[in-house]
Parts: sequence; structure tokens; C-alpha cells
Amino acid sequence: MVTKISVNSTKKDEFINITRDVQIAVTESNVKHGICYIHIPHTTAAVTVNEGADPDVVTDILTALNKLSPQLREFRHMEGNSDAHVKSSLVGISTSVFIENGTLLLGTWQAIYFCEFDGPRNRSVQIKIIEE
Amino acid sequence: MVTKISVNSTKKDEFINITRDVQIAVTESNVKHGICYIHIPHTTAAVTVNEGADPDVVTDILTALNKLSPQLREFRHMEGNSDAHVKSSLVGISTSVFIENGTLLLGTWQAIYFCEFDGPRNRSVQIKIIEE
Amino acid sequence: MVTKISVNSTKKDEFINITRDVQIAVTESNVKHGICYIHIPHTTAAVTVNEGADPDVVTDILTALNKLSPQLREFRHMEGNSDAHVKSSLVGISTSVFIENGTLLLGTWQAIYFCEFDGPRNRSVQIKIIEE
Repeated sequence: MVTKISVNSTKKDEFINITRDVQIAVTESNVKHGICYIHIPHTTAAVTVNEGADPDVVTDILTALNKLSPQLREFRHMEGNSDAHVKSSLVGISTSVFIENGTLLLGTWQAIYFCEFDGPRNRSVQIKIIEE
Repeated sequence: MVTKISVNSTKKDEFINITRDVQIAVTESNVKHGICYIHIPHTTAAVTVNEGADPDVVTDILTALNKLSPQLREFRHMEGNSDAHVKSSLVGISTSVFIENGTLLLGTWQAIYFCEFDGPRNRSVQIKIIEE
Repeated sequence: MVTKISVNSTKKDEFINITRDVQIAVTESNVKHGICYIHIPHTTAAVTVNEGADPDVVTDILTALNKLSPQLREFRHMEGNSDAHVKSSLVGISTSVFIENGTLLLGTWQAIYFCEFDGPRNRSVQIKIIEE
């Protein structure tokens, strides 16, 4: 079974904390021990796990990604969003988190982020939960 | 069980669309619902999921990766391919895609790419399919 | 079940080969065929699979990552380690390796590395092994 989460981004580049939504999917699955897989069905977005406490951290990551993957003059793709495709492949469109006692086993500072690189858009996150 | 796909790259840097080969492995496994894992057993290659429609997108990603990870004067590894090892760790050597009704659950624009960073070479892709 | 490995880094940036520790966890699990998942519960560290033969390769990867993700003047996070958070999201905090006949199915040159980007610290690696 695949659960879908809707995410609406409001900026071109934005990290949206989806930890709570993913935990709801885990809770509703009734799986106590296993793995939660997160897949992004888009090519100008990504998913990452990083600090959830200080919002400046993800702002800084976005700043760094924009320096790392600027809009290059050499780009040939006509839509003008190749920088976003590059960021998607660098950060990655899938991850997985362990489930223990019905809870996502994240580190103290970890949160799960949907990464928008070509917003604003209505996006989707796919989740699959496998029992151990 | 592990299924192997052979990939022959023809350039130093090249993205090769392997979606069809991975789907054949899924179809032959007879698994209707589950997860398809893709592992690259090489250290100067990678696997990514990105746009499959316009071939300019992967050309642009390769252009960006070459700017991002140039051959640096400080590199010490004697084989002269450290830039390729860097790209491999940035893009990553493993991913997974959900299977629904015997089909890879990819987004409309998504395709699976073998990423060659030190070709041309004969390469191998390992696939494992787990039933839900 | 989740197995934990302790890793003690001794530098700010360091790749520590944990292949042997992960293989011990696989052996002790008695799982012959399946998947070994590796999760890093930290936000300034990562996990990667890359060359284990020549130690110059990981030195070169660290050199490249430091150029790629420098400490930027624009960074706002007060702890001063945003460069490490960026590297964590670029390299990624989770990976998985296939298990065949009780052994990690790595390529000839592949090793599993814990990636420290904000050491020295006492760190933890989480492992989950799923039978096929």
C-alpha cells in the first residue's frame, strides 16, 4: 500500500518539514517495527533528513545549494529549471527511516524535509511502510 | 535473489536510462506490490532518478556536476579519477522505487539513470525485489 | 531490531571505514539473504559507499566537499557548522546494501564509510537487517 501526502510549496526554493505527516502515516499503519520509505515522484524536488530545531539551518542549506547549483549559461533545457533538476539528483528523491514501537527512529535533532527547488507548486509525497 | 543488468557506457560522463531494464526485472519477478532496490557495485558511478522526457535535462545535470566536482590540483589519488569518486558519493550508489500492480511507481517525468563518471566501461547494476 | 555501532571521530572532517562493523552485525543476525539498512541519527554526519583500497580517495572526496560546501558569510545558524549540515544532506544519512550468503554484497572496491563533518565527536550508527 502507498500513502500519499500533499505538500503545497509557496516559494521557488523551500524546505517543508513533513515529519508529523509521515508519523501520522506510520501510526495509522499500526506497524510497530519496520521501515518507512519516502519517495518523491517529482524531478525538481527532493527529500532529506536534517536539523528540525533551528529553522536557520535549512535556510543555510538552501543558500549553499543555490551557490552550488546556479542557473548556468550552458544549460540547454528550455524550461529554465535545470538548476532544480541538479539539486534533485544531489539531494535525492528517496530515503527511509526505521520504525521502533510505532515511532519514527529519528535522532534528537533530525526532521524529514520535502525539498522544493522549482516552486511554488502542489506536490505529492509517497510513503510505503513495511513491517519487520 | 539479486538480478544483474549489464550497462556499457561509451563516454567518460554519461547518464544511461535503465528504466526499461529495471521494469523487466520487476515483471519477471512476478511481484505485484513491494519495493525494487537498485545498487551500483562501482565507486566511480551512481544511480539517480530524474527527468526522462527531455534528454537535455541529463546533459545539463552532467554539465553542472563537472563544474561542481572538477579535477582538483590537490587530489592525491594516482588514478586521476577522484572527480568521479566525488560525483559517486554526491549522487549515491543506491536507490529504491515502489512497485504497484507489477509496475515501477515512478512520477510522470521520472526515469532511472545509471550515472557513468569514469567511462567508457562495462558496468553492472544489481537489483533486488522485495514483496510487500 | 536495531543494532547500534559506536564511532569516535578524531577530526573535524573524517571518513571512517565501518564495513567490518556492519558485516559483524550481519553475521550476528544470521540473515543469509536480505538487505542491511544503515541510518545515521545525526545532522552533521552522513554515510557513503566508496573506494576502500586507496585511502587517498576519501581524502580527495573530503577535499572536494570542503571546496563544494565552504563556510559562507551568508550563513545564519549560530553554531557555525552549517557547512557540515549541507554536506550531510548532499551525501545523505541513509543507505542500504544487499546481503547474499550472509555477506554484504559490495563491489570489489567498495567500502562503507561513516562521514564526519563536525567532529571530533562520539557518534552512533543504526543498523537494521531485513530477511528476504
